Amino acid sequence: MSAQRKPILVVHGPNLNMLGAREPEVYGTTTLAEIDEGLVALAGELGWAIDTFQSNGEGEIVSRIQEGAERNSGLLINPGAYTHTSVAIRDALIASGLSAVEVHLSNIHRREDFRHRSLLADVAVGQVLGFGAASYLLGLRALAGVLDPEK
Amino acid sequence: MSAQRKPILVVHGPNLNMLGAREPEVYGTTTLAEIDEGLVALAGELGWAIDTFQSNGEGEIVSRIQEGAERNSGLLINPGAYTHTSVAIRDALIASGLSAVEVHLSNIHRREDFRHRSLLADVAVGQVLGFGAASYLLGLRALAGVLDPEK
Amino acid sequence: MSAQRKPILVVHGPNLNMLGAREPEVYGTTTLAEIDEGLVALAGELGWAIDTFQSNGEGEIVSRIQEGAERNSGLLINPGAYTHTSVAIRDALIASGLSAVEVHLSNIHRREDFRHRSLLADVAVGQVLGFGAASYLLGLRALAGVLDPEK
Amino acid sequence: MSAQRKPILVVHGPNLNMLGAREPEVYGTTTLAEIDEGLVALAGELGWAIDTFQSNGEGEIVSRIQEGAERNSGLLINPGAYTHTSVAIRDALIASGLSAVEVHLSNIHRREDFRHRSLLADVAVGQVLGFGAASYLLGLRALAGVLDPEK
Amino acid sequence: MSAQRKPILVVHGPNLNMLGAREPEVYGTTTLAEIDEGLVALAGELGWAIDTFQSNGEGEIVSRIQEGAERNSGLLINPGAYTHTSVAIRDALIASGLSAVEVHLSNIHRREDFRHRSLLADVAVGQVLGFGAASYLLGLRALAGVLDPEK
Amino acid sequence: MSAQRKPILVVHGPNLNMLGAREPEVYGTTTLAEIDEGLVALAGELGWAIDTFQSNGEGEIVSRIQEGAERNSGLLINPGAYTHTSVAIRDALIASGLSAVEVHLSNIHRREDFRHRSLLADVAVGQVLGFGAASYLLGLRALAGVLDPEK
Amino acid sequence: MSAQRKPILVVHGPNLNMLGAREPEVYGTTTLAEIDEGLVALAGELGWAIDTFQSNGEGEIVSRIQEGAERNSGLLINPGAYTHTSVAIRDALIASGLSAVEVHLSNIHRREDFRHRSLLADVAVGQVLGFGAASYLLGLRALAGVLDPEK
Amino acid sequence: MSAQRKPILVVHGPNLNMLGAREPEVYGTTTLAEIDEGLVALAGELGWAIDTFQSNGEGEIVSRIQEGAERNSGLLINPGAYTHTSVAIRDALIASGLSAVEVHLSNIHRREDFRHRSLLADVAVGQVLGFGAASYLLGLRALAGVLDPEK
Amino acid sequence: MSAQRKPILVVHGPNLNMLGAREPEVYGTTTLAEIDEGLVALAGELGWAIDTFQSNGEGEIVSRIQEGAERNSGLLINPGAYTHTSVAIRDALIASGLSAVEVHLSNIHRREDFRHRSLLADVAVGQVLGFGAASYLLGLRALAGVLDPEK
Amino acid sequence: MSAQRKPILVVHGPNLNMLGAREPEVYGTTTLAEIDEGLVALAGELGWAIDTFQSNGEGEIVSRIQEGAERNSGLLINPGAYTHTSVAIRDALIASGLSAVEVHLSNIHRREDFRHRSLLADVAVGQVLGFGAASYLLGLRALAGVLDPEK
Amino acid sequence: MSAQRKPILVVHGPNLNMLGAREPEVYGTTTLAEIDEGLVALAGELGWAIDTFQSNGEGEIVSRIQEGAERNSGLLINPGAYTHTSVAIRDALIASGLSAVEVHLSNIHRREDFRHRSLLADVAVGQVLGFGAASYLLGLRALAGVLDPEK
Amino acid sequence: MSAQRKPILVVHGPNLNMLGAREPEVYGTTTLAEIDEGLVALAGELGWAIDTFQSNGEGEIVSRIQEGAERNSGLLINPGAYTHTSVAIRDALIASGLSAVEVHLSNIHRREDFRHRSLLADVAVGQVLGFGAASYLLGLRALAGVLDPEK
Repeated sequence: MSAQRKPILVVHGPNLNMLGAREPEVYGTTTLAEIDEGLVALAGELGWAIDTFQSNGEGEIVSRIQEGAERNSGLLINPGAYTHTSVAIRDALIASGLSAVEVHLSNIHRREDFRHRSLLADVAVGQVLGFGAASYLLGLRALAGVLDPEK
Repeated sequence: MSAQRKPILVVHGPNLNMLGAREPEVYGTTTLAEIDEGLVALAGELGWAIDTFQSNGEGEIVSRIQEGAERNSGLLINPGAYTHTSVAIRDALIASGLSAVEVHLSNIHRREDFRHRSLLADVAVGQVLGFGAASYLLGLRALAGVLDPEK
Repeated sequence: MSAQRKPILVVHGPNLNMLGAREPEVYGTTTLAEIDEGLVALAGELGWAIDTFQSNGEGEIVSRIQEGAERNSGLLINPGAYTHTSVAIRDALIASGLSAVEVHLSNIHRREDFRHRSLLADVAVGQVLGFGAASYLLGLRALAGVLDPEK
Repeated sequence: MSAQRKPILVVHGPNLNMLGAREPEVYGTTTLAEIDEGLVALAGELGWAIDTFQSNGEGEIVSRIQEGAERNSGLLINPGAYTHTSVAIRDALIASGLSAVEVHLSNIHRREDFRHRSLLADVAVGQVLGFGAASYLLGLRALAGVLDPEK
Repeated sequence: MSAQRKPILVVHGPNLNMLGAREPEVYGTTTLAEIDEGLVALAGELGWAIDTFQSNGEGEIVSRIQEGAERNSGLLINPGAYTHTSVAIRDALIASGLSAVEVHLSNIHRREDFRHRSLLADVAVGQVLGFGAASYLLGLRALAGVLDPEK
Repeated sequence: MSAQRKPILVVHGPNLNMLGAREPEVYGTTTLAEIDEGLVALAGELGWAIDTFQSNGEGEIVSRIQEGAERNSGLLINPGAYTHTSVAIRDALIASGLSAVEVHLSNIHRREDFRHRSLLADVAVGQVLGFGAASYLLGLRALAGVLDPEK
Repeated sequence: MSAQRKPILVVHGPNLNMLGAREPEVYGTTTLAEIDEGLVALAGELGWAIDTFQSNGEGEIVSRIQEGAERNSGLLINPGAYTHTSVAIRDALIASGLSAVEVHLSNIHRREDFRHRSLLADVAVGQVLGFGAASYLLGLRALAGVLDPEK
Repeated sequence: MSAQRKPILVVHGPNLNMLGAREPEVYGTTTLAEIDEGLVALAGELGWAIDTFQSNGEGEIVSRIQEGAERNSGLLINPGAYTHTSVAIRDALIASGLSAVEVHLSNIHRREDFRHRSLLADVAVGQVLGFGAASYLLGLRALAGVLDPEK
Repeated sequence: MSAQRKPILVVHGPNLNMLGAREPEVYGTTTLAEIDEGLVALAGELGWAIDTFQSNGEGEIVSRIQEGAERNSGLLINPGAYTHTSVAIRDALIASGLSAVEVHLSNIHRREDFRHRSLLADVAVGQVLGFGAASYLLGLRALAGVLDPEK
Repeated sequence: MSAQRKPILVVHGPNLNMLGAREPEVYGTTTLAEIDEGLVALAGELGWAIDTFQSNGEGEIVSRIQEGAERNSGLLINPGAYTHTSVAIRDALIASGLSAVEVHLSNIHRREDFRHRSLLADVAVGQVLGFGAASYLLGLRALAGVLDPEK
Repeated sequence: MSAQRKPILVVHGPNLNMLGAREPEVYGTTTLAEIDEGLVALAGELGWAIDTFQSNGEGEIVSRIQEGAERNSGLLINPGAYTHTSVAIRDALIASGLSAVEVHLSNIHRREDFRHRSLLADVAVGQVLGFGAASYLLGLRALAGVLDPEK
Repeated sequence: MSAQRKPILVVHGPNLNMLGAREPEVYGTTTLAEIDEGLVALAGELGWAIDTFQSNGEGEIVSRIQEGAERNSGLLINPGAYTHTSVAIRDALIASGLSAVEVHLSNIHRREDFRHRSLLADVAVGQVLGFGAASYLLGLRALAGVLDPEK
């Protein structure tokens, strides 16, 4: 691990700020702050720092990912509802040149048909979905493995 | 009527700020301010206060609906163009736990094919559409009935 | 209001005669007679008389709407199952020249896929759906507004 | 040419601020600033001033186009990713009453299937696509011709 | 011509009783009675008698066609709205064993998409459409030719 | 067997009155009266009485099934052509609360594509199809088993 | 009838020159020359002259129809295989400004799926199909009626 | 009944060996052994012997059905999951020349969309579905009727 | 500019010879000769000669484009109706190795659905559409820029 | 072999005259003349003569195949781009009564989606595709086998 | 030809062991043993040995093709019903690295729609179909040509 | 960790035995044995034993999963090609009652369209895909977390 390397960017899409309060039968009771704490802890173990970002705005997420081209080493993203509708975030991800891992709390294939298609899946390295808050931790491990393949 | 209860949130989606100026043959000449006046008046009769909100931004509408979970009793929404494209507003509506009524000025079934599908319709209580500014007033009555079923 | 003007025609489609007895978890416990009473009362307030008609037969509904061209001022219709299958009622509605408002007790967008499409929606003035028996009362208000636009 | 007439509005959609840095094999190495310079120069020749606007936010683009109804004579727009997903920008364009020309750097018909459909194409006057930065210059000429048909 | 042979059955589907009154820009001003007169006259020239039948009810049309198996020599049918929705009339036509000609006043291919498909077309001998009241006369000639091929 | 219990309702849809006369290569030469005799005989063995009903009218079938809620114990139905087009009969079946078995003389999966879909299949208990008149007898056994599960 | 008026153009599409030799079980044994003779005879009765044209080439048919704008009064066309594939003939028909009647020897709705769609049907006045060589004669009568509506 | 005639082959597809243990709310608690006992008993009454076969392997089912061409008189098959995916079993059934009856424990039309289509339905004589273990017994009766039509 | 270089080929597809006469509300009143004059003039300014070719025949257009491989430097093509139906012209364009620009007078995205798809768009360099005769001039500029990228 | 029998017709569709020059990575470097030489040589071995025909015009290919009804014994055809768009060639093939073998140089299933469907495949005896120039030779062997089945 | 080189693997899919017995009107009376004899003879002429393999099991075919990576030079495969359903065989073919030729006895484009798509076609070198047993011989010649391109 | 608890079942679908040899640019050079070693090691750390199983046969995989109901605590499955085609494995998974995690080496959303749909995804707890051999390790961690939620 190198202390100088750039942090991993964690992006939480729309409505994830409601986590814990929102539909616990679907998303559990863990809050976003708790998820971020877990990510910081695991990242530390894996030798990485974390920048976290949540927004309900598609354009703001686009802008933050663009900045990542300079400021970050990789991207862990739960695009929330924008998974299914945002070509702009897809384009930002490509433009940033960042390796990205897409995560979902719930199993999107059990939900409405329009949630089965991800506009990001084929431009991300891979996907982890369905494990609640653990999806983020698994996704972080996956991303760390992609960024340090020899480790 | 109870003065203590929380106001009803009225959300106007993108381009509704142009009302009156915009395509009068489709939307009529009533302005949004006039619609809001009408809503305040009718709400008063029905024993409710009104919070109105208009934005062209999907993320801002998401955020305002999220706040409604604390600040409001119910939601009257004309999602405008986001009716057909926003999963994020759908998710915000579900997350807020608010009873919602969806209204449209025009008859969306007479317009382009992509306007026939609403991503909110099945998570709202019901829909009122096609009656111009009166759609809002009827929608408010409907919502008041849902919130005070015994009245 | 003019006492001489022709009554509004209210058409209830197939199986609505079973209301109250039928699937109360979907349609509530109000009977069709109670709905008609409510409509008569509200119509009186709004200055209108009401002709009500229920039939399980597509052809009979077609014939009654045709008669409406002479006998009625406007049409409030819950087409029931024929909403999704009857081009003949659509054609009768156009042929009658009557302004029509389409109402549904349940939120058809929450039900089977084949109930999402209405063959009448784009030839009606507008739709009100999802509010149980209140859908009829809101629809009547909407229709009265269409027939007396200056009121 | 008249010095008093309102400038042409040039709107660049999401991620176009990354131009030059972003995927040069697809979009070339010209930056957005260089494109804007080229547009200003050509506009001068053609007797027009230019207002340029870039945003990653759908709502902000909607708002800027709305303002164009008062402040601008016509619209040259590269909607980027919103080409394929934004009904709101379509509605803003219609509401603004501006003549619009849609341009794309790349040939969208050579790319992913979801990029083949433009939600703006049929409400714009026309399209120019596939010529890199030259698409903008050709689009500006086209728009100038539409605004000054007799020239 | 033989006076003993059974008459040709002419069936007019739903709403055709409104002809003349109904949408003259689509269907012209000729009434159904005038069409029937014209058919009787032409049939006489061609050596045939005519039985005419109009109903708004699908079941009644089915029953009348069934009777035709005994009472009639052939079938000239304008199924109106049932063209696009009635498998029952299709089955009656097959069961009756009658040679049938399908006619339409308007050009159904210029109208809504759901009017382009006929459930009868492939079980009829042929179709005549788009010539207003003349469609019936041409259809009668066609049917007479089918019934008396050597004439 | 209990003499007091309500009879089973047998509904034959449109054109089944033509049985025997109609397309023997598809439906065989047995008449509807013969089928009903067979059903009465088997029902007697199984301890049931039978009410039979045939109609070509969708609305009449709806009405008869509605009456079944009071008058009958279960429903054996060959909906004929309405299998594929009638939401109203589906709704009547649900509203009646009767256990229903759907039968077909022919194998509908060997016929035109539009005959492959049944609008009743998922609200019936089950289906028996393809065995000619025996489909009815097997369907009656199936229904008797459903009504008397312990037998 | 007026001797000065321009003749009616009759266009026979590809492979119709093979008529009589070709698939008699589908098209009968009448040759194209016999059909043309029949048309000349009937046209004479109806007060019209006939120009006939057959080609296997799409471009040649386009060119002949274009000439019809000057040389002919109306168009009777059996587009053969080009019915289903030629936008160019459709455009020629529109460009010519001629009233056109589309005819087919066979019932195209009984044949392969790709023969069910006509690219001309909605720009022709009407269609006559399924009556063999008689389709042409009926189509000529129909066209004469369109060209001389008062007769 | 003839003791010499070949037995009826009963094929149970994949996962049916789990019956009783598996999803009792969908499939009931009867085991496959109990179903086979019931079939043997009924077959005896009807004058037939039974060969039963269960496999989870598509190829093994294909092979057993092929053998049936020599060893069996008819086929009663519950293809389980292969109903929806196996063209090979369809081909084996055709190749065997056996009359087959398809049965299902559950009502496949109430389940996932991909279970609504059977690749065997149109090559079987008929189907019985939705009656739990009774589907097999009814199917056996149906098959016996097909094999001994005069009985 | 080099006088020796090969001319640019301009191909006008079917019915464009009717320009000016044909549907002026769609295509304007400019004739094809006038368009060609404008192209010659602009080409001269840009240092190019022009070969123009119009045909109603798909095969003739294919042959002329093939010749272009030897005789021309680039291709400006308005494929007219063949835009939507000709794989052969697509193949000729690829086989010729010419850089091509596709132009349309009208905005094809405002017209019938079958005009929205171009079989050439993804093998051309780019498209210009919707600007009437100016589409050709803009397309020529675009093509000149592609052929002389450093200019 | 019989010297008197009619030659086999070999038809090469549009752009095949460019072979060798055209996209060698897709089609190889063999010219059409070389393919024809190879066919003549193999045909001689197999006891047949060959008539070869290439055209870029759909109508010309139709006409040549029609002539084949008199002049040829069988048809070996590489329809090129018309494989996917020509109903007219399909009809000519049927009308000619010739046994036909369809060949393709490339594997059309590896190419664009619109090349996967052949409008001739089901009216040809069979297909050979993907083997470059050898597809023709194999196709000729296949056709010779069809024409002389006992050899 | 080299005696040392590895044999060609011939794989026959499910139900091909029934050949000769099975549906002679579709597949002819040749048995699989006779086809294999013919292949051995022709292979000898072409300088190859043959390994033949038939199985009704998808997994067994997968395993045999995998072994081919070591034991065989190329693959001639008639996948039978697995043509349309097996991604596993497709993957085995790719994994084996063998050049493969796909053959079919019948013309799959004349049969049920689900037989028109091959999951192997685009990963095989090419296809030969429709010539009965000769398809195998032609396919073997094609494969030998691919393996010895200079011969 | 408890030594007594049942091992986790790891199922590798068809062709995964070829790993390392097979398409290294898609699947990397790690062999299946190496993956199993890695799983055993990690499972040990997490307090679990592992049972591994690979088969090319759908039926064998079904059978092994069924046994898992008794012998295993959970299921880690890379269904390979059967992901997209096997309803039988889906049913086995449901019948077994095991919690399952689905993993893929490659990113299936970057590959052929038919690989985008998983028939298991909605009955598994979740998915991990795109990380090569690491997908298995992450999937095992995910499954361990599901089985021991409190750890």
